Parts: sequence; structure tokens; C-alpha cells
Amino acid sequence: MTVSGDRRNLRINLDRLEGRLRELARIGALDGGGACRLALTDEDRRGRDLVVGWMRELGLIVSVDRIGNVVGVRPGAEDGPPVVAGSHIDTVATGGIYDGCLGVLAGLEAISVLNEAGIHTRRPVAVAFFTNEEGSRFAPDMMGSAVSQGILDLDEVLAIQGIDGTILADDLAAIGYAGDGAIEDFRAHCYFELHIEQGPVLDTAGETIGAVTGVQGIYWTEFKITGVANHAGTTPMQSRHDAGYVAARIAVEARSIAHSAGANQVTNAGFLRVGPGLVNVVAGEATVTTDFRNTDVEALKRATDDLVEFAKRVAAEEGCEIAVHPHARFDPVTFDPGSVALVEKTARAQGHAVRRMHSGAGHDAQMFAANCPTAMIFVPSRDGISHNVTEYTAPEDIRAGADVLLQVLLEKAEEV
Amino acid sequence: MTVSGDRRNLRINLDRLEGRLRELARIGALDGGGACRLALTDEDRRGRDLVVGWMRELGLIVSVDRIGNVVGVRPGAEDGPPVVAGSHIDTVATGGIYDGCLGVLAGLEAISVLNEAGIHTRRPVAVAFFTNEEGSRFAPDMMGSAVSQGILDLDEVLAIQGIDGTILADDLAAIGYAGDGAIEDFRAHCYFELHIEQGPVLDTAGETIGAVTGVQGIYWTEFKITGVANHAGTTPMQSRHDAGYVAARIAVEARSIAHSAGANQVTNAGFLRVGPGLVNVVAGEATVTTDFRNTDVEALKRATDDLVEFAKRVAAEEGCEIAVHPHARFDPVTFDPGSVALVEKTARAQGHAVRRMHSGAGHDAQMFAANCPTAMIFVPSRDGISHNVTEYTAPEDIRAGADVLLQVLLEKAEEV
Repeated sequence: MTVSGDRRNLRINLDRLEGRLRELARIGALDGGGACRLALTDEDRRGRDLVVGWMRELGLIVSVDRIGNVVGVRPGAEDGPPVVAGSHIDTVATGGIYDGCLGVLAGLEAISVLNEAGIHTRRPVAVAFFTNEEGSRFAPDMMGSAVSQGILDLDEVLAIQGIDGTILADDLAAIGYAGDGAIEDFRAHCYFELHIEQGPVLDTAGETIGAVTGVQGIYWTEFKITGVANHAGTTPMQSRHDAGYVAARIAVEARSIAHSAGANQVTNAGFLRVGPGLVNVVAGEATVTTDFRNTDVEALKRATDDLVEFAKRVAAEEGCEIAVHPHARFDPVTFDPGSVALVEKTARAQGHAVRRMHSGAGHDAQMFAANCPTAMIFVPSRDGISHNVTEYTAPEDIRAGADVLLQVLLEKAEEV
Repeated sequence: MTVSGDRRNLRINLDRLEGRLRELARIGALDGGGACRLALTDEDRRGRDLVVGWMRELGLIVSVDRIGNVVGVRPGAEDGPPVVAGSHIDTVATGGIYDGCLGVLAGLEAISVLNEAGIHTRRPVAVAFFTNEEGSRFAPDMMGSAVSQGILDLDEVLAIQGIDGTILADDLAAIGYAGDGAIEDFRAHCYFELHIEQGPVLDTAGETIGAVTGVQGIYWTEFKITGVANHAGTTPMQSRHDAGYVAARIAVEARSIAHSAGANQVTNAGFLRVGPGLVNVVAGEATVTTDFRNTDVEALKRATDDLVEFAKRVAAEEGCEIAVHPHARFDPVTFDPGSVALVEKTARAQGHAVRRMHSGAGHDAQMFAANCPTAMIFVPSRDGISHNVTEYTAPEDIRAGADVLLQVLLEKAEEV
């Protein structure tokens, strides 16, 4: 059984969806249009309460698990795990109003449409949001979805101390979202996430929908270099052990390696500190952290290994100590080809320009990919800007993405 | 007329000199053995009062000029400008007890020896200390000596605002050292400065005395780069305008240029900051400041010009804006060959291993070099460490340096 012709014409109500986006954005609103609802703060609680209220108004059966993930289920004719639309509603400190929220509220909009049309689906359909996707107060990011899919251990995560010095379990209890739902409540028949691209590719190309094929692997490597702080005038060049010089060499080499690797290899050395940081003092210590990403895990490992080898060699030549810390090692994730094809086909059927693309950023969807068919739908970010109050996605693009999500959910909910 | 044989055997009293060093070091004493007497603070006042008290006890005629420089003159048989031993008694925040103080107190020790021996010199002999040599609270450094030698304008300097927000003239008055002596009070017949090397050359070579031939020129250049802060995962490499990458390239190139130039060219890029400074955000802004030093002014200019040209080219390739600020431009200073030869000859006559060397750091002496015969005497710094509480010069090296200073002053005081 598949979706009938009439159902294929169902479309979301943009005014209602944008109204909910705006109402949620008022909680923690920032000057200039963004919002700040850091995970497990009072603003997060108020945002959660608002969305849970909408879930209940729509008749969803709401449950909260022990890490604070929230799912609202619309029962189907058959039992079994639901077709899930998910994302997050926490933000970074300078968040925009679309990042995460769009996926959750477009899911609720799909439920609203199903309710209005009186459609009883074969499978349950659910909307979920996950705790602490951003990782701004508690590391790591994508925490709730990782716990729900068995990638992080619940008890270890509950004991994590955040940047404000508090323990995660305490903050979770304080906002009233330490639920009693089993982790298994979030097992899905399949998982779809509508999200803004947060990059410039669709906007630059003038395309509307990204059919996301997977998520780049992310390897972060911290290099802590210890040299000898010394006078920049009186110390002969051959007597220097300049930690800052070694750090700068690593930052430059990271770019060279990415350039040589080509293809999808990207790199960044956005964290670079030298101490004591005085123009006339040779740096006695320096830290540089590199961020390598690639869809090809072998290329990613090779690039990282090459940089570590280079760093050790240059540090030795300079007479510096070096400590290498692999801070993050997320292998690339490939989404289910059938689900990606469904997104692409659905978008084309609605007349949109579609691009198959990978995600440069991490998303909750990647935690589901190992456990169920998963894909993502991207819509354009103006100028590629995100994590910024000026983050913007045009109404027609929101409509397009939400319509694709609605039809994909419906298709999967009827799938035999 | 020259110094007679008997006078050549005069030697300083190490216990007395070290006693004064330790007594001065008690003012603003730091844990671990150093001292903090930042210019024009109450600690500076107490240090000045102590040294002026010693000058008066030794019968010197003390005068203070309008920038707070202090000179104590021991009259000679003839009038005219004195033979001057000078340095400074202000310190950096984490100062050692030898930097500057050794030269001033060794000068007082020479006066003590002349007094004890009842020697009446042909020319006056004077000991001087200069306001704010370190430049830690008020820029620029070597301020008092520069004003006294007509290199900086008195009224402009008095109006300078320091890092604590106060005006120099007010702080000078507050500590009671806004004197009425004419700037010309500090014109010298010749000028000698005993100072710790603050570098590792003598210590490494196992030599006792540096006959300092001049001071390296110092060119500081600040590069402020503006790119575009962006997501390190979602922004394609060719769309990045990475200010941090440009800064790192400049830091690396500075070293390459120094290496190619060889000889006495040294370089440092000790100040390097990237913003926002997050591992997963492409740096939108970065600042790096380079410090080039050389005894050869043409080589110094060429190295600086080459780096500026490189920086502009790399910034343009990366699509970044760059602003270049020449923060300091001190040309190299060459000391009087006859005075340098006198230092060397005197040290050898006393049986010391001597090295002709240039100074990598700036000193008050360089301000005198244009106006009178000038030279410096270096003694070893253990491990080359200075501006640090662990700064150390061995007693036998203090004795050697002070004995050379005594004999050089005596020789010049008798010179026809």
C-alpha cells in the first residue's frame, strides 16, 4: 500500500508553521532576531513546555526518557516503532530561530495536517526532540540522540559536569525533564530530519532541497606544544624552542594536507593560542586544534595521521615537547540510499530543484543511521550563515522543506 | 695623563655591592626571589628613595630632572660633563633583582671605592638612573633616557596615559620625582652601562664579559587580518576567508625570512590571536605581530619589507583584508669603537674571557650613543633567563663586571 493520489496533494500550512517558529523564538529572544535557549536552562525548559503543550493539543502521546528526550506519538492502525520526524530545540548562545526548531515544528505541522485531513496511517508517526544537540553547556553535542540510540552510556552522560560547574543530571531534574521513559522509546521504524543547511551550497546554487546522503566524519586533534619562553632579542635563533612557531606550522600544514587530499576534505585550525602572547617574548607554550572532516573515512584518517606525524617532526626539530590529544573522532555516516532516494523523488515531484549533498555539520539523524533507515532534508541558509542571530531561511524554502517532510512521513507511514 | 699603576689595582667590595642589591630587592620583593617595582608606583618611589639616600651618603650632588631621571655627581678637579655610569631601577611585573639595578649599584660601588681610596679625579664621575626603562606601565620603554638625550619630547611624554589610565606627569608628581633639573643635566662626557646579558650567549660560551658593540635595530610590525567567520564543516574550502590561516602563514614566513637572511637577523611572532577562537569556526579575524631585529639596518628593512609584501599577497589570495601597522622602528645603534675597545682591554687585563657582542635588547645606553662616547659591559645571565624571578648572575661575574666598570670609569675620568 502506498499513499493515494489525494494524499499526495496534501500541503502544510505555512502561516501556522511560521507562527509556531516565531512563538518558540520569543523564549530567550535575542536582539537582532535570534534566540538563546542553552540546553537545560530555564529558557530550554520554557521552550520544551511550549512544544510539549502543542504535542498534547495535537493528541500525541508524549513521553520523556531519562536523558530528557521528548517524543510525541500519533498511533497508527498497527503497532510497532513509529516513523519519526526529529531534531532539537536547544540553541547555541547566539542562535538563530531555524536551527533544529524547523525540523521539530515541521514535524508537528505534518501531524496537524494529518489530523485535519482525518488520516489514519498504517504505522504510528512521531515527532521527537533531543536533549542538548548543540553541546554548548555540556559536551559532547548530539547527546540525547546518541544516548537514545545506544552510542553514549546513559549513566556516564548523566554524570557529566558542564561549563557552569553543574552536573547534567541535576540540571535535567531542575527543569523537570528527567523522565522515566525507557531509552527504547526512541527506537524508530525510520527517521527523517528536516534542517537548515547551515552552509552556502544550496543558496549559492539557487536550489531549494538538499537530499542529504550522509554526514562528514569529524576528527578534532589538539596539539599542545611546550617550548621555552625567552627574550626575542637576546636569544640566538638556534637556541630558541618556539612553541608558537610549531603551532603556526601545524595550522599551515593542515591546509596543505586538505588541499592535497582534494575532494570533500575540509580543515580548520580555528583554535590557536600562544603564551605568554607578547610580541617580544618567544612563545613558551602554544595550543592549536585542528578540525578535519571528510565523507571518506580512510581519507580522513590518512589526513589526520599525516598531520600528527608532521607536528611531531616539526616539534622535535624545534626542540619542543608536543602532546597530541584526539578530541573528537566521529566517522562519516552514510544515510539509507532508499530513504535519500525517497527525499529526492518527493522533492522533484513537488517541482523543486534538488541537490544530493552531504552534511558538513553533525546532526541527531546520524545517531539513528545505524539503527534504522534514516535521511535528512536540507533547505537553504541565506549566505550560509547559522549559529548567528541573522540566520535566515526564506518562507518559500520553509514551505518546500516541510511539504517534502510531510509527504515522506506519509509515504513511510503507509509502507508495508 | 692616565690611571697610575696603583689605581689599576683598585677592586670593588663584592659584599657591599651584593648587600645593596639585596636591600633594594626587598622593596617590591616577589616570592621566588624577584621584585616588582613598576615605574612610578609606590614601590618605585621607595626604591628611588633608597638609592638617592645612598647617593647622598656617598657625598654625591643629586639632581632630578623634569622626567624624574636622577643623577648623583662626584665633582672632579675640572668642570664639564661627567663620566656617567647609568642604568635603571624600575622592573617589569615579574622582574629579577639584577636587570638595571646592577648597573646603578655597581656605579655607586665604584664611587664608594674612589671615596675610600681618597681619589680626586680630573673629570666629574656620576651615577644615574632613568625613569621607566621597562615601559611596563607607560609606553615607550627607555623613556627617561630618551627624553634626556633629546630623542623624545618632554611635554609629549609627560602627557602619556598608562595602562592604569593615569597620566605620567601626575604619577611622577605623586611619587615626588617631578624634579626641576634641566634636561641638560644628563649630558655626559661619556656613558658606560654595566648590565646583565639577558640572553644565553656568555653563559653558554663560559665567558665572563661582553664588550657590547651596539644594539640591534628593532622593527615591530602588526598585521590585523579580517576574514569571514564561518562554519568549519559546512563552508566549502574555496568559500573560506580564513584570517587565522593568513596569520599563521605570516608567522611561518617570518622565520623563513630570518633564516634566509642569516647573520644577526632574529625574528619572533610572539603575539598571535585568532577570533572567535573556536575549533569549528573559521577565524573571522586574526592579529599577529612580528619582531625583527638586526644590527644591519638595510637587512632589517629588507626583511620587514619582504614580510609585508608576503602578508599582503597571502591575504589577497585568501580574500581577506589586511592592515599593516609599523609599531616600533628603532634603527640599530653602534657604540663608540674606542669605548668598546677600552671595555675589552680592561676586561682582558683583569684576566677575563671577553666576547665582542651586540645587545639583543634595548638599553638606556643606546640613547646616549648619538651624543657622547658610549659602551656597555655585559655579564652572564644563567640560562639566559631574565624578566623572571629566577634571573641570576653569579657573584664572581658581578665582581668581574663591576671591577671592569670601576676601571673604565677611572680611565675615562683621567683622560685628557
